Amino acid sequence: MSTSSTCTFCRIIADDDPDVLVYRSADVVGFLDVRPVFHGHCLLVPRTHYETLDQLPAEMAAPLLQATQITMRALREVVGAHGTFVANNNVVSQSVPHLHVHVVPRKRKDGLRGFFWPRHPYSSDAALHEMRARVRKAIDSLTPA
Amino acid sequence: MSTSSTCTFCRIIADDDPDVLVYRSADVVGFLDVRPVFHGHCLLVPRTHYETLDQLPAEMAAPLLQATQITMRALREVVGAHGTFVANNNVVSQSVPHLHVHVVPRKRKDGLRGFFWPRHPYSSDAALHEMRARVRKAIDSLTPA
Repeated sequence: MSTSSTCTFCRIIADDDPDVLVYRSADVVGFLDVRPVFHGHCLLVPRTHYETLDQLPAEMAAPLLQATQITMRALREVVGAHGTFVANNNVVSQSVPHLHVHVVPRKRKDGLRGFFWPRHPYSSDAALHEMRARVRKAIDSLTPA
Repeated sequence: MSTSSTCTFCRIIADDDPDVLVYRSADVVGFLDVRPVFHGHCLLVPRTHYETLDQLPAEMAAPLLQATQITMRALREVVGAHGTFVANNNVVSQSVPHLHVHVVPRKRKDGLRGFFWPRHPYSSDAALHEMRARVRKAIDSLTPA
């Protein structure tokens, strides 16, 4: 499996820390964005280091879709999302050059005007950890055995 | 194939108009967003009427990925995009309740602060038609026979 020793996400994947990750399949991991657009905002990342969506092989499409769908459903439960914003920046506005899909929970009249702001940081590490645990639990319960 | 008689996108799909569509595969069609974030902004739509990404069956993942990748590459050629913003709104901010993926060309320092605005309409129908033809041509040349 191709990894980059300097890549932030490859490090997260190599750590494979069940306290950090909220989604883990053979091919994809998910974790909370620590600077969420809205609380519960997740990032889904192939374990293999592809820089952009352009480089993702066809056989990775279904695993990434499954991860996304399960995360969408989990966020509906966890934060009562009415909808979801699924997005992927390639090259421009891509902060980490390892393919990642944002899954952002949406509510009606939530005021979102754009993806890059406003950001709503968690109020504390405890709030972050609690959300992480809740999302992980919901995802676990929705992941086929 | 499931369609909705009242759905704007199902109508576009049923018309299957080669002058309107810029991408056509067995499962997915693509066309220009007529209110683009940036010129060249495409929408990719499964031919079958699924309302949200949540409902997309696994076997549709690879066809939709392929459509997206080809469109990304086409926009790089056509508008000299340095990168791409790929996004999908589900329920909230979803103007047409037929699953669609936005493929928005990005350039460095293009000023994009968010997805919903600013919009940059084509200056004329002629400009729209010209862009449509250029994108279609590039996509055709990048689509495996």
